[in-house]
Amino acid sequence: MKSYNIALMPGDGTGPEVLVEGVKVLDAVASKFGFKLNYENYDFGGERYMKTGECLPDNAVDELKKHDSIFLGAIGHPDVKPGILELGILLKLRFALDQYINLRPVKLYPNVETPLKDKGPEHIDFTVIRENTGGIYTGMGGAAMVGTPNEVATQVMVYTRPVVERCLRYAYEYTRKRNKNKTLTLVHKCNVLTHVGDLWVRAHKEIGDAEFQDIKQDYNHVDAATMWMVKSPEFYDVIVTSNLFGDIITDLGAMIQGGMGIAAGGNINPEGVSMFEPIGGSAPKYTGKNIINPLAAICSGGMMLETLGEDAAAKAIDQAVNDAMASGKIKSLSAGKMGMSTTEVGDFVASLIK
Amino acid sequence: MKSYNIALMPGDGTGPEVLVEGVKVLDAVASKFGFKLNYENYDFGGERYMKTGECLPDNAVDELKKHDSIFLGAIGHPDVKPGILELGILLKLRFALDQYINLRPVKLYPNVETPLKDKGPEHIDFTVIRENTGGIYTGMGGAAMVGTPNEVATQVMVYTRPVVERCLRYAYEYTRKRNKNKTLTLVHKCNVLTHVGDLWVRAHKEIGDAEFQDIKQDYNHVDAATMWMVKSPEFYDVIVTSNLFGDIITDLGAMIQGGMGIAAGGNINPEGVSMFEPIGGSAPKYTGKNIINPLAAICSGGMMLETLGEDAAAKAIDQAVNDAMASGKIKSLSAGKMGMSTTEVGDFVASLIK
Ligand SMILES: CC(C)[C@H](C(=O)O)[C@@H](O)C(=O)O
Ligand SMILES: CC(C)[C@H](C(=O)O)[C@@H](O)C(=O)O
Repeated sequence: MKSYNIALMPGDGTGPEVLVEGVKVLDAVASKFGFKLNYENYDFGGERYMKTGECLPDNAVDELKKHDSIFLGAIGHPDVKPGILELGILLKLRFALDQYINLRPVKLYPNVETPLKDKGPEHIDFTVIRENTGGIYTGMGGAAMVGTPNEVATQVMVYTRPVVERCLRYAYEYTRKRNKNKTLTLVHKCNVLTHVGDLWVRAHKEIGDAEFQDIKQDYNHVDAATMWMVKSPEFYDVIVTSNLFGDIITDLGAMIQGGMGIAAGGNINPEGVSMFEPIGGSAPKYTGKNIINPLAAICSGGMMLETLGEDAAAKAIDQAVNDAMASGKIKSLSAGKMGMSTTEVGDFVASLIK
Repeated sequence: MKSYNIALMPGDGTGPEVLVEGVKVLDAVASKFGFKLNYENYDFGGERYMKTGECLPDNAVDELKKHDSIFLGAIGHPDVKPGILELGILLKLRFALDQYINLRPVKLYPNVETPLKDKGPEHIDFTVIRENTGGIYTGMGGAAMVGTPNEVATQVMVYTRPVVERCLRYAYEYTRKRNKNKTLTLVHKCNVLTHVGDLWVRAHKEIGDAEFQDIKQDYNHVDAATMWMVKSPEFYDVIVTSNLFGDIITDLGAMIQGGMGIAAGGNINPEGVSMFEPIGGSAPKYTGKNIINPLAAICSGGMMLETLGEDAAAKAIDQAVNDAMASGKIKSLSAGKMGMSTTEVGDFVASLIK
């Protein structure tokens, strides 16, 4: 029987609770589809940082590299200064494992409430592919005369052709596999970011013209994209964008698809080890109450299987989540208002796996 | 009688049509409140660029500096390569006239349709103050080996303490003058942009603690801010943010307040010459049909008067726009669907000036 080795990183707050439900559904689907998942636990996160002062010990990356994939609960601790764990764990892993794609489906499941008027599941179904290791996230830049009236600080948005290309090529291929209107929209700000924007625009056109003539090319400025996401989300099929713009528009995307309870993300190295996570954070105030929504974790498990090549199993998870929502039995996506406990939602979705 | 010299830049497309209505309402209010507006016309824009090859001739900035304010219709021409006019006119004026504040009220007038569920005028009423000359808009950066597989491109986000300070101080003062919950929310991305973000965060706190103890300080990451603007816009009073983030979130703001038909902006140099504009662009396909919505231009005229110190007159314009919408006679904000022509909307608002 085929088997995969998965590193589990439950992390902080409600992370462990949602991850358990993700694993529950993964196991249900694995047994139906005839493969096996072996898990190993890693305790990286706020608690460990407070005890040991370390975010990711030196050998951790090597350890994690031995797995087929990483499944993460949440990182973030109320007693740790904001930024430390995010940079020390999440961003560090993206860089160290070269997870250069961030994949964020923005999909409205049935009965999920969106804050947008007159929009249903038929309108909100697109995917954002965010470049995940370059741009202004590289840490290039610095500051001088800090704390004086002359302080000057910089951050450098930097892209090279190969880094742009590998992201665009992934995005074109992803668009080809999707069954919507075969349109890849580049989101950037090329009218102001003349150097970096121009690099993206040219590469988008050249690669599309040469290798993906079946895919329509489109372009939006990032400011305009936030408007269209709210006014006409049905317009989008796949969006590809740079790191910072992707960070911003995927949060907006999470909101229009019903919020953090359902938003799943993948940090993907197509040739290496990827990491999947519900993007909602550790939600300290709901911790330990069995009331947090595990659907985002369950959906990220599905994305993990898709990336591992288990497409049918991935589809089964997506279908089960869809059916769970369509049943009307889950009253809301908000913690404490689901009409079910965290465990019950996991059981329910697992029971719907076909 | 007090008088002001206004440079009119009708610009391209529907710019001239909306500007005429803006001027109509300005004149109505001027005669009620006892001041005079003298206008001088400038033909900068796409047509002139295509004839002469120049965006802003060398002496134009000096000419414009002699006025009390600039009132702009729209810049953008279908036959001119995107970027040229924006950089050559709009951004050039911001830099040359040191218009370091971009002021964008996000206000839902009565009967205006917002794409958000369950939100009315009582929920959507905040102002974004965008730093308007610095950051990643400075043009710092460059590219090497362009067009080769080794191409590398950079854009530098750069801020100095004085540039951050003058923007924050303006924002604090603006918050003090507004009558909401006296909260100034800094929007940035300090967990990733560690140098520039840190500069903004420290300056926001230090200036607030020292000089504006009556103002509550708040902070949102830019990604989260796009979520809250959609989910809980009522939460915001004044947002202050850097140039690029401001560009993005003000477009989202325009959408939730009902779209480009009503979105007004000011490019302000508090000690110099400011420029006011409807932010919607030149809308070539509606040009010359007398169907474009002039309300955004009318509102920008109001902002201009406020900045010139004519507060009562500015309030009268805001009230007239409010009353025009409250009357229910304007059916929609979209071009061609207003149930009135461009001219009639201008006449109607002018008639409501009290
Ligand atoms: C936590 C933070 C560093 C991270 C990011 O900015 O990428 C998060 O917002 C995300 O989108 O995964
Ligand atoms: C036209 C463009 C250069 C401009 C900007 O990015 O500032 C516009 O989007 C705006 O917000 O005024």
